[in-house]
Amino acid sequence: MRKSGESGQGDAKRGSIGARRNPATEAAILDAAEAIVAEKGIAGLSMEAVARRARAGKATLYRWWPTRGALLMAAYERQKQIGAYPDTGSLEGDVEAVLRLLFAHWGRPEGSIFRHIIAAAQGDPDLADALERYRQERLDSLATVIARAEARGELSGEVPARDMARAVMGMAWLHLLVGRLDADAAGMARTLVRGWVT
Amino acid sequence: MRKSGESGQGDAKRGSIGARRNPATEAAILDAAEAIVAEKGIAGLSMEAVARRARAGKATLYRWWPTRGALLMAAYERQKQIGAYPDTGSLEGDVEAVLRLLFAHWGRPEGSIFRHIIAAAQGDPDLADALERYRQERLDSLATVIARAEARGELSGEVPARDMARAVMGMAWLHLLVGRLDADAAGMARTLVRGWVT
Repeated sequence: MRKSGESGQGDAKRGSIGARRNPATEAAILDAAEAIVAEKGIAGLSMEAVARRARAGKATLYRWWPTRGALLMAAYERQKQIGAYPDTGSLEGDVEAVLRLLFAHWGRPEGSIFRHIIAAAQGDPDLADALERYRQERLDSLATVIARAEARGELSGEVPARDMARAVMGMAWLHLLVGRLDADAAGMARTLVRGWVT
Repeated sequence: MRKSGESGQGDAKRGSIGARRNPATEAAILDAAEAIVAEKGIAGLSMEAVARRARAGKATLYRWWPTRGALLMAAYERQKQIGAYPDTGSLEGDVEAVLRLLFAHWGRPEGSIFRHIIAAAQGDPDLADALERYRQERLDSLATVIARAEARGELSGEVPARDMARAVMGMAWLHLLVGRLDADAAGMARTLVRGWVT
């Protein structure tokens, strides 16, 4: 947490600076962050502006999200809602499904922000940290897809699960960043998975 | 070309607007672009500023590089100079060498600009076009590594060469964009290549 000495000002403020999150306040803050990004882009997002719009105390914001980057990632994550990856019965099918879900999400207005988050992270260490934490969570999530393949007895065992997850993520990010979300997900899945299964 | 009606102003200008490039003028322009990016970052690069610093006509700049994005990519490409990828005797070794060369280059001051080029391209269509042209050239270059493996009889033939090149590039860009240029290139090469060779 960067700032802890501040407190809410005036009766109109929501919530409290208590450690337990108030769901209504949390939703109001994330709504405000989302609306500001939609109106002004990532560069327009400041803790100050979010607090004002959500009628929340800045101390509350900083307590729950220590940096602007962490708040931005939380807002992105809330609207992502891809849920669990489908079980198609094979690793190749599962990886194809992951890529299709990601490309569909990133192609929607609320998902298109992710390329700008990656871009802004290149010059913003706080956002880079928040993105890295999020990326590690997504690698964990991809590892569940790999674990399913292992349970099916599909894997050769020669390649670590984490490395497979990285390869899938690399293929996905590359196509996001060059605006090729219409690319061939099935071909990508085949390219990646052939060496991992027996 | 965006502008063609301009001509050099005054005797101090270098070069001409002829179709043949004057190597000294080209070098002066790319030097100027590189110096401006080093001093002010990508956002500080304008055709106007480059022309002034290089004492070249703006028409010359636009004739040789139709957009600011194209000029920026040309400056990046000139200083990259990785040359041909080494032949290590196996596809896995070659892919590892490619990743090592890229990570070493991107880790140097003059190479670190590439992550910012990718970032800036997310909000700049001209730069995105120039980056995409460059990316296709790099995929061609990676295809020569794959062709070498084919000539050795290493490949199973099940995965198209272009898809392999994309997977290698995706792994590389991912690690650039999250600042993990110290990651395990040998493990990545193994992860990627296992399914492509017999």
